This record gives sequence, structure tokens and C-alpha cells, in this order.
Amino acid sequence: MNRLAALLLCTILAGPAAATPELRATGDLGVIVERATGSVLIVDQSDHAAIGRIEGLGDLSHASLVFSPDERFAYVFGRDGGLTKIDILTRTIVRRVVQAGNSIGGAISDDGRLVAVANYEPGGIKVFDADTLELITDIPAGGKALGLEDAPGRRFVFSVWDTDETRIVDLSGAEPKVTTFENIGHQPYDALVTDDGRTYIAGLFGEDGLSAIDLWADPPEARRILPGYGRGAEEMPVYKMPHLEGWAKAGDQIVLPAVHHHEVLWIDARSLTETGRTETHGQPVFAMARPGGRQVWVNFAHPLNDTVQVIDSMTHRIVGEMTPGPAVLHMEFTARGTEAWVSVRDANKVVIYDTNTLQPIGEIAAESPSGIFFTARAHRLGL
Amino acid sequence: MNRLAALLLCTILAGPAAATPELRATGDLGVIVERATGSVLIVDQSDHAAIGRIEGLGDLSHASLVFSPDERFAYVFGRDGGLTKIDILTRTIVRRVVQAGNSIGGAISDDGRLVAVANYEPGGIKVFDADTLELITDIPAGGKALGLEDAPGRRFVFSVWDTDETRIVDLSGAEPKVTTFENIGHQPYDALVTDDGRTYIAGLFGEDGLSAIDLWADPPEARRILPGYGRGAEEMPVYKMPHLEGWAKAGDQIVLPAVHHHEVLWIDARSLTETGRTETHGQPVFAMARPGGRQVWVNFAHPLNDTVQVIDSMTHRIVGEMTPGPAVLHMEFTARGTEAWVSVRDANKVVIYDTNTLQPIGEIAAESPSGIFFTARAHRLGL
Repeated sequence: MNRLAALLLCTILAGPAAATPELRATGDLGVIVERATGSVLIVDQSDHAAIGRIEGLGDLSHASLVFSPDERFAYVFGRDGGLTKIDILTRTIVRRVVQAGNSIGGAISDDGRLVAVANYEPGGIKVFDADTLELITDIPAGGKALGLEDAPGRRFVFSVWDTDETRIVDLSGAEPKVTTFENIGHQPYDALVTDDGRTYIAGLFGEDGLSAIDLWADPPEARRILPGYGRGAEEMPVYKMPHLEGWAKAGDQIVLPAVHHHEVLWIDARSLTETGRTETHGQPVFAMARPGGRQVWVNFAHPLNDTVQVIDSMTHRIVGEMTPGPAVLHMEFTARGTEAWVSVRDANKVVIYDTNTLQPIGEIAAESPSGIFFTARAHRLGL
Repeated sequence: MNRLAALLLCTILAGPAAATPELRATGDLGVIVERATGSVLIVDQSDHAAIGRIEGLGDLSHASLVFSPDERFAYVFGRDGGLTKIDILTRTIVRRVVQAGNSIGGAISDDGRLVAVANYEPGGIKVFDADTLELITDIPAGGKALGLEDAPGRRFVFSVWDTDETRIVDLSGAEPKVTTFENIGHQPYDALVTDDGRTYIAGLFGEDGLSAIDLWADPPEARRILPGYGRGAEEMPVYKMPHLEGWAKAGDQIVLPAVHHHEVLWIDARSLTETGRTETHGQPVFAMARPGGRQVWVNFAHPLNDTVQVIDSMTHRIVGEMTPGPAVLHMEFTARGTEAWVSVRDANKVVIYDTNTLQPIGEIAAESPSGIFFTARAHRLGL
């Protein structure tokens, strides 16, 4: 039924998208990646409704996106190196470039003028003019670039899987200024910047621990945190790499999915030392703090990926568990945390939860949905 | 020249406001209160430009406003008890009620459904349907209500000047549930909720210190913090009461203007104990953290109100001082902190600063501007 319903929906939506779009604000809109069909669904949070679809975005099997400061345009980073600028008001593609052979996400500078993409092939990052998508600068690296985040002062930070490096790229002057940190830890696989733009944390696949840089320090230095956090425990297979980017700050703690272990790690945001662990249902993929940080929602890797757990950030105890359906890929909170939207890929739907009651309060049909991105991201640092 | 220019601008703007408004996103818009003329100017942050004006809002001599979750509507709280819902896309008044004789600000619930107003005369708060402005409930109090803030879970918190009380109003159920804290301290005059929605802090005019409530605690309790912070120092006259609401969180500290003293106080956000003080140019009015919290900008009461100082939140040292002009009344940062907009009442303009260089990069003519409010506020807790 769902494929048919989705096709029907698609046909219905094709009309409005082509006609003159209605006057509407953009603060409560969102973009849902439909990973199998190279399309995105535009949604209205307030109405719990899809309002349009944009197709032709290439390979979205591992896609993410960022928003322009006015919350009108989204920049979609496809797995195939495609960078597409879409207009969520008119539901059209504004520009599209295929800028690399294989890419893994991107970021937008704090002033909204530059969009950067992290590439696996060739390695390094490319920086584009957010308006025109013209190439501004190319920062090569000796391997796969990943964990690319924005930092205050027109800077980007990324890490390199093959060379164990993190680089800060400062684009505030006439020429890019690149600072390289070597030996940050073996095989960084993803990273985050805290919501204050201060701390860059890279997860490590090749060793037990993480790497952190205080971006406010002068000069900043990379240091190991939580060394040997999995020591003594049997390593479990990793069916899906955890993701670090997201709302990882919960009060004065940072919460992170462990690798090789079915637990999330709690870190004091100031000292970056461990404050606790929570055993979870499976290998966590995303651990995302509800805005304000009172609870953290966690989803899991295959084959335990039908479940979401909710953890109290004060007690570190699991206070809720839901089974939205097969293949829960992503979660997104409304800006002030009253709802969580959960994509259930193999049920072709997004389920909407009330974050206070943990009850479902709505759903939206979507074709193999993965990432959900609300426009409020435009106003946040480190996404 | 400025009055003439403003009138001309007003005439020019009257046209577009009346015609069919253009399609535009709302994430980079803002509303500037023009206190003397009962009007507000709608501005586009990206273009550094005014795009319209809305008139007929009553007495805006001490006005503030909040935004709907979609960033289309603003609810303007006038000093005369007027509550006006304006549409910033069409630049029109949607609805207006005069709901009290004298009011002092308001808040919007985390789900965007309820708008609450704090009233001096009669005391207490009134809660309205955000869509229709119909009265939902009336919470009386034994005196002037103030320091009204939203808290997660459809709650509002406010204090009462005359009775030394703070009240939490929980509107998540069928009936309002009010929790009253007595003897929180003498003469609370304003309050804030931290950006995580966790801590409510009320400033006290009648005694040396502040009152804090941890809203995550079960049950929450009011306690004094920083008792006797001005002890031993001569009290200076207060020409204008400091304002507490705003971005007061700077990293893991909260920054507050002292009363009767020319200094700002730094508090550890976890322990709520003092971590330092900074002597300032005058009696601080607003101490606002740049998003991310790296610096804090401060403006001052008459007669030293032509100046803004910038303080480093790590060292507590003043790192910048500007004189935008006569009567600097308010400051607002763009969402990711790259610009600060400063209203200079007696120069009839808003000056825009680059927050990295501290240099002016633009200005906008406005008639006696006071509060500046950017739509990103719609996505934040405790404003």
C-alpha cells in the first residue's frame, strides 16, 4: 500500500510545487531525505503535513543538509558528491553541482556565506559560495575528510580518516588559513562541535577513546579524552557507525554513542571526563538531546533498529522505550523540544511523538525516509 | 535630517506593505520597536534593510514581543496593556486586545499555543490562545506580576513584586496547576530562564542577592544565591532597572547586571555561586551573551548610556568599547552571533556591528528605536 500511496501523494504534490507557491513563513518547515528515490519531502511541522516534494537529487543513500540563514534554502549533500541547493518555498532545485566522486556531509559558515563539503574521493574539503555554488577554495587532504563542522569566526573543522588528523580552516581573511593537528587518534570516523561552538570532539574507530579540541584556547590543542573506555569488555561487531553530530549537549554533559559497545557515554562538558554510562538496547547510532537537554533519545544499528530509547540526563536511567517500526534511521526535535519526529525507513513513514507523554501523535507518509532536518538548524552553531 | 528621512522612509514603505507581499522566508527577519510612535519596523537581517512598518500598536514605551513557532507572527506586549498580534509577512495587524491597564511583558508557551502577559494593574498574568487571542485563563496575584518566562512542558513562571513570590503555572493539563514559592526574596524586579529551560533566576531590588529555582528538581525549591553581593560598597542610584531576560548564559556561566553597582556578576551555571565580577562603565542594563557565549555585550543606564562594552567570558576582562550614540537601549545578535544590532534611540537609528572586528558595518533609520527582536527567538526556550 505504501508505495502506491507515496506515488499518489507524489502526483498530488507535483501540482502545487509547479504552481505559484502560497505566502508562508519558513520557521516551522522541514526537509526529509527519501534515501531510495533521490528525493526530499518538504514538511510543515505545525500541520503535521507534507507540503511538497523535490526530486532529482542523485544518490541520497547517506545524505545530510544544512539551511541558509533565512531558512529558505537547503544545501543537500549526496553520497555521490552532488551538492544541490533547493528552495523550500517554491519547492524547486535552484542549482546543482557534482563536486566530487564520493562525499560525506557538509556545513555552512556562521555568516551563511560559505558551504563546505567533506569528500572521500578525492579527499579533503571544497568550499562553495552559498549563493552561486561557485567553488571558492579547495582544501586537499591525504585521505577521506569527515566530521566537518562549522565553528564561529567563519571557520570549518574536519578530520581525516587515513592520516589521523584534524584541521581548522579559517576563512575570515583573504586567504584560507589551515591549522593541522597530527596524531589526534587512530581513524577518526565522525565528529561534533558543541552547541556553544567551543569544543570539537572526534570519535575514533581505530582506538578506544575520543579526541577533543577546545576551539576557544589560544592556541587550540588536540587531546585524548576517555582513553580506553571499552577496556576489558568484548568488542561487538559494528553494523553501522555511530553518528556524533547532533544535539549532543545535555545540560552540562555531552552524550556520545560508544563504538563496539551497547552503551552511551556521558561526559562532563567542562572537564571532558566521564560522568557515567547507560547500557542500551543495541549499538547506538544517534544520541540526541531534546532541546534543553532534559532527556536524550537514542536509536540503534541493525538488527535492533526498530527501537528508540529515552534516557533521563540527570539519572542516566532509561525512562522510555518505543518501537516505531522497522529501521529507525533518524530523529529530529522541534525547536523547543515539544515533539520528536522519527523516520522509519521500512515502514515508509515518519512517526511524530509528544516528548512529554512519549505517545505517537501523528505520522507522515514518506518514501524510505532517513534524515529529518528542521529549519531551526539554520540558527544553531556546529551543525 | 533623521525625522524627515524617517517620515520619507515611512511613506515609501507604506506602499509595499499595502500591496501583495512578496514571497520570502522569515528566518532572517526581525522587528524593531519604535517606542515613541507606537510602531514597529520590520527588518531583513541579510540585506541590512527595513522592509516595512506597522503602526497603531499603542503605548510602546516599555514594549517587548515574542514570535510564533513558524516565525510569521509576533505578539507585541505594550505598556498600556495592549496585546497585538502582527503578521510580519503581510505587515499587518492580525488582532489586538487591550487586556489590562498596565503590563510588563509576556511569553509564549513551548508548544506555541499559548501567549501569557504579565500585568501590573490588575496584578497577575493572563493567558491567551495564540491563534485567536481569546482569553484562556486568568491567574491573579496579590501585586505586580513580572519576570514572566516560558518553561518546558507548557509552563510559565513569574514573580510578584509586592508579595515576594514566584509562581509556576503548569498548563499541560485540563486545569491550570499553580505552585507558589513564598519569601523568595524582597521585591523581585525581573527574571530569566536559562537557555536550557532549567534555571529560573529572579533579581531582587529590595535586598542584596538573587533568587533561583531549579525547574528540573522534584519538587523545585526557591533558594537565595549571591546573598550580600554588594556588601560594603556604597549603593549607587538606579536610573534604570537592569533587565535580566536575554542570552545570559555564557559557556558554563551566567552573567547578570548588578543593581546599585557598576558591575556585572558572573555565576557558575551549575553551582550558582559567584565566579567573578567585572567593573563596568556604568550601571548595566542588558548583559547579553553572544550566541555561543564567547563574549558578553553590555549597555548602560542614563546618563552613561551612549556606550557598549564587550567582555571576554573566559577572562572577565573588557575587550572592547564602542560609543554607538545617545541612548543605547537594546542589542540583539544574529542567530549564530556574527552581527550585533544596537538601537540608538536619540540618533533614530540602529547600528550594526561585526562581532569579530567590533566595527560598524551598517545602519538602519528607525524612529526612537528600543527593543530589537530577531525571529530566531521563536526557536529558543526562556525568552
